[in-house]
Parts: sequence; C-alpha cells; structure tokens
Amino acid sequence: MNGNGLFITFEGIDGTGKTTQAAMLADRLHADGYDSIKTREPGGTAGAEKIRELLINVAESKWSNEVEILLLTAARHEHVEKKIVPALESGKIVVCDRYVDSTRVYQGHSDSGMRDCIDALHERIIGKSPDLTFILDLPPRIALERIGKRGPADAYLDSYGDRIDSLRQGFLDLAREFPNRCIVVDASLPAKKIAELIRVEAMKRMQ
Amino acid sequence: MNGNGLFITFEGIDGTGKTTQAAMLADRLHADGYDSIKTREPGGTAGAEKIRELLINVAESKWSNEVEILLLTAARHEHVEKKIVPALESGKIVVCDRYVDSTRVYQGHSDSGMRDCIDALHERIIGKSPDLTFILDLPPRIALERIGKRGPADAYLDSYGDRIDSLRQGFLDLAREFPNRCIVVDASLPAKKIAELIRVEAMKRMQ
Repeated sequence: MNGNGLFITFEGIDGTGKTTQAAMLADRLHADGYDSIKTREPGGTAGAEKIRELLINVAESKWSNEVEILLLTAARHEHVEKKIVPALESGKIVVCDRYVDSTRVYQGHSDSGMRDCIDALHERIIGKSPDLTFILDLPPRIALERIGKRGPADAYLDSYGDRIDSLRQGFLDLAREFPNRCIVVDASLPAKKIAELIRVEAMKRMQ
Repeated sequence: MNGNGLFITFEGIDGTGKTTQAAMLADRLHADGYDSIKTREPGGTAGAEKIRELLINVAESKWSNEVEILLLTAARHEHVEKKIVPALESGKIVVCDRYVDSTRVYQGHSDSGMRDCIDALHERIIGKSPDLTFILDLPPRIALERIGKRGPADAYLDSYGDRIDSLRQGFLDLAREFPNRCIVVDASLPAKKIAELIRVEAMKRMQ
C-alpha cells in the first residue's frame, strides 16, 4: 500500500488495450463506491501534459534517448508530486495508464547503461513505485493490426514494427523482475473478460 | 582543450553583463580570424529552445527544483550533442552564455542533495565541461539596478532580490572549487575594459 491509497499501473506495447482497461477499472471501482482517479503518462497534470507535447512533437528535433528519459522523468516528478501522491495520501485508488515500466522498456530495454540510468533517476528523484501493475500482453501481429485501425493520426512510429517483438519481451522480462507487483494479462481475450480478471486482482490488493 | 576547439562559458547572477560580454568576445575572436560561435543556455538548438520556453513559461505550473534540473539537463544534452561537440570537434571556439555552473548555483546552491544530483547527472549524461569560465561578479545592489532598467518584461523574479546575495556567493564558491578553469571578473568596470581583460585571458588558453 502507498499511503492509505493503492497505486495501480497499466503497461504493455501499443495496441494491447491499456487505456480502455484502465478506464474500465476506474469506472468499475467508482461504481463500487471506491474513491478512484484515472490518469496517464506522460502527462496527468497541466505542466506534465506540456512536457508530453514536447516529447511527441518531434517535427523539428528528434530527441536522443537521454533527452527522452530526462523529459519523461521531469513529467513524472510533476505528476507524482502534484497528483499521484496527494491522491494516495487522501486514500484514493490511482489508476495510471503507463508509468516508469514504459520508460524502462522503451528507452532502456536495448541498452543496459540507459536502464541503469533510468533506475537511478527513478530511485533518486521519483521514489514512488506502483503497488500493482497489469502488463497487457498480446502477439505483436495483433497489436500492430489494432494500431493500424486507429488511422494515420497514430501512424507516427515508422520503425516501431521492427522493435515490437523486443518491446513485448521487455515487458515480460519486467514481470519476472518484479513478480510481487506485476501480473501479465492475456490481452487477446474479450475486453469484458479482461476487465473482470483485473477487477478480481485489484480487489485482492484492497483486502 | 576540448577536441580541437575551445569551450568558453560566461556565468554570474543576472545583470552582470554576461550576454554582452559573450557577444563582444565572439565578435572580437571572429574579427581576429578565429572560427567561433556564440550560443546560450538554456537553449542553443531548436529543440533546446523549446525546452527553454517550457522552463520560463511557468504561468500554469511552477516547476519544482527537481523538474527544473531535469529540463535544464535535457536541454543541455540536446545542445551539447547537436551544437557544442560538433563545433569543438571541427576546431571552433564555442562561447556560451550560461552552462552547468548556473544550474549548480540556481538549483543546487542552497541544497547539497540537489547539488550532488546535478553533478551526478552532469557526469553521467552530459560529460562535457568548459575549458574556461568567466564568472562576472557584481555587488547585488548594482546587479538589481541593471535588471530593473530592462523593464517589466524581465521583472519575473519576484523573490530574486532575497536570494541574490546567496547566488552571488554560489558563483564565487564555484570559482574556488574549479580554479583551473574559472576566472572571476569585476563586472563593475567599463564594458570595454572587461572585454579586453577577457580577450587576454582567452588568448592565453589558445597558445
């Protein structure tokens, strides 16, 4: 437990349904009478959303891996300090779509030096880890099909297809590294079935 | 020496004439036939200037010290990788208005934990230190008068007056910490006299 509240994160490659499932869990918790908030990274506060815009808008400047890590950690500090910690301290359940595990995988999986740097920054500057993390797992072929259906607005990841197998493995490796908080969920199941599995696991942590 | 070039920074509290002196040195070096560029922090590249805008535009969100350090280091990595190192490697003299010493003083002087964090980030992620640093020093009363003359556009530092003695001392402390590269300059002298003192010291490093 984090303070009096519970900090739940959703992780996984694009197209696995994280955003949908995070919303379904927050809505269900709310309907069941729990005080919960849904948030996302990068972003979650006015300032952190501005940093998100800077990260995503790479038209003029492709950021280096190091710059991405620093901007993501800056946004996370803002988010944790101004939104997540106050919510947890007032006893709320915080449901967050992506968190530090995404940084570990996207910016750190293929480079152990960067992974060490991400962990050192997290320990020193952020310090707040989730109580429970759902890793939504899907064969890359299906995830890519789902991303494709979102249309050209999200077709920004030119080289993403080449990296997707390695990224999926990165999330599965994290589940083994942090077995006490990570649960791998088969994201090829129907959305309602997944939501029920997730609700049951979340309830176990609240008893 | 840094590569084949020379990396010169200007530091000090606001109102000491850093920007003026950096421009005068770069112009003089150019007139004397040296290949030199003038740049500034935070900023210096298209991407880093965007991070600068985010740092300065605190209308919606006052950044924490930690977030400022992360954003400044992100901008610095972008600046060093894309502008400073390529210039030094091609033999140029780089004249930079503010660099890591400003972060050490403004974000780290009153908090040894933050100063350690700034140094650790600099060593791990940036790695590039100046060859020569001019610390422009001025009694706070005169510096504040000069800032006042710039008009309301720069009158953004509400609590700056309270901190200015400590910030000035911070720069003087750095000069003692890094005696091989730091030269304290009396910024109350006439601008042309300062420019000549600085030119002579820069020339010594190029012999």
